Parts: sequence; structure tokens; C-alpha cells
Amino acid sequence: ANEEAVTLINAFVVPVGKEDEAISFWEQAAEFMKKQPGYISTALHQAITPDAKFQLINIAKWESADAFKKAHLALSQESGIERVDGVVPSPALYSIVRSD
Amino acid sequence: ANEEAVTLINAFVVPVGKEDEAISFWEQAAEFMKKQPGYISTALHQAITPDAKFQLINIAKWESADAFKKAHLALSQESGIERVDGVVPSPALYSIVRSD
Repeated sequence: ANEEAVTLINAFVVPVGKEDEAISFWEQAAEFMKKQPGYISTALHQAITPDAKFQLINIAKWESADAFKKAHLALSQESGIERVDGVVPSPALYSIVRSD
Repeated sequence: ANEEAVTLINAFVVPVGKEDEAISFWEQAAEFMKKQPGYISTALHQAITPDAKFQLINIAKWESADAFKKAHLALSQESGIERVDGVVPSPALYSIVRSD
């Protein structure tokens, strides 16, 4: 098991006009996720220009890759929160390799 | 002019085998960018799994949208740093709309 803290970055393609619905979905998912073991923090970023490819990007910290994977599985299988039609997520886990 | 601090998020699609070259390009670009007015900080994130759509994501803070735009223009027009063939960036500016 990877015991180092990891960063989840999830870039969402959001159809025009679905921004509010997508944020509402995110709020429900965040409420579920913050109750799972290993959760540290989360921040939803919204593009300041309408031409951005990804209108929403979530950046969250988790204590380990395993903790996030278990929580993410529970979100899809147990939470009952319905995804928004047309919104395309691309979640993946990252570590910081360079910073300044 | 927007005087609030903004977050640049740039998700890169990186062809297999080009990771090191892409990181080297990023290092040169970061060196140039940190000398520009309005730069605050930067962090390059690398995916911890090879199947992630975006192998590299840069997250940087700038004092304003204008400052970033000027620096980005200078990077492409004046720096002389050559982009890596096949690497596809998707830069956009964001503000945090929800956090916990």
C-alpha cells in the first residue's frame, strides 16, 4: 500500500448551461467523500473564461492512494448520488515532482 | 484588470516515452515564468499511474489574470524555449469556488 499523501486532480468537461448542475453534483459528492477515511481536503476550481476546455477542476488531498480508491468506489457504488448527463470527468492521482 | 490572485491549471497529454522530455521543457518554462511580474508559485504534478489521461498537470499561482497573460505571451514570443512534439497542453485560469 502506498502510504504517502496524494493529490487527486479531476478535470471536468461541462456542457454549456450545465455548470450549476455540475457544481451541485460536486457538492453532494464532496459531502460524501469528506466522511471517508483518509480524506484531507478539497477545492473546486472554476474557469474564469468560458472558452476553457475544463470548466471545473477538483483538486483534493488524500492520505494515500488506497484511501482515495476505496472512497471513490464507495461513491459510485454506495452513495446513490447521480452523475450529471454530459459531464465528463477525468480523475487521476498525482504526486508533486517539481515545485517552486 | 482583474487584480485577484488566480490559479493557472495546465493539463498536459504526454505521449508514452516523452515524460522526461516534457518535464525538461516544463523546467525551462518555469525558470522563465518565475522571473515575470506577478508570479507567485508553481507545482508540477505527475500521475502516479500510467493510464492517467494527463500525465502532467501544472498548478501555478499568479497575482492576476493580466500578469499571467503577459508572461504567457512572453514565454511563447520571447523565451525561445521549444515545445515538445506531441505534447498537448490545455492551460486555463481558475478561481476556487468551493473548498473544505
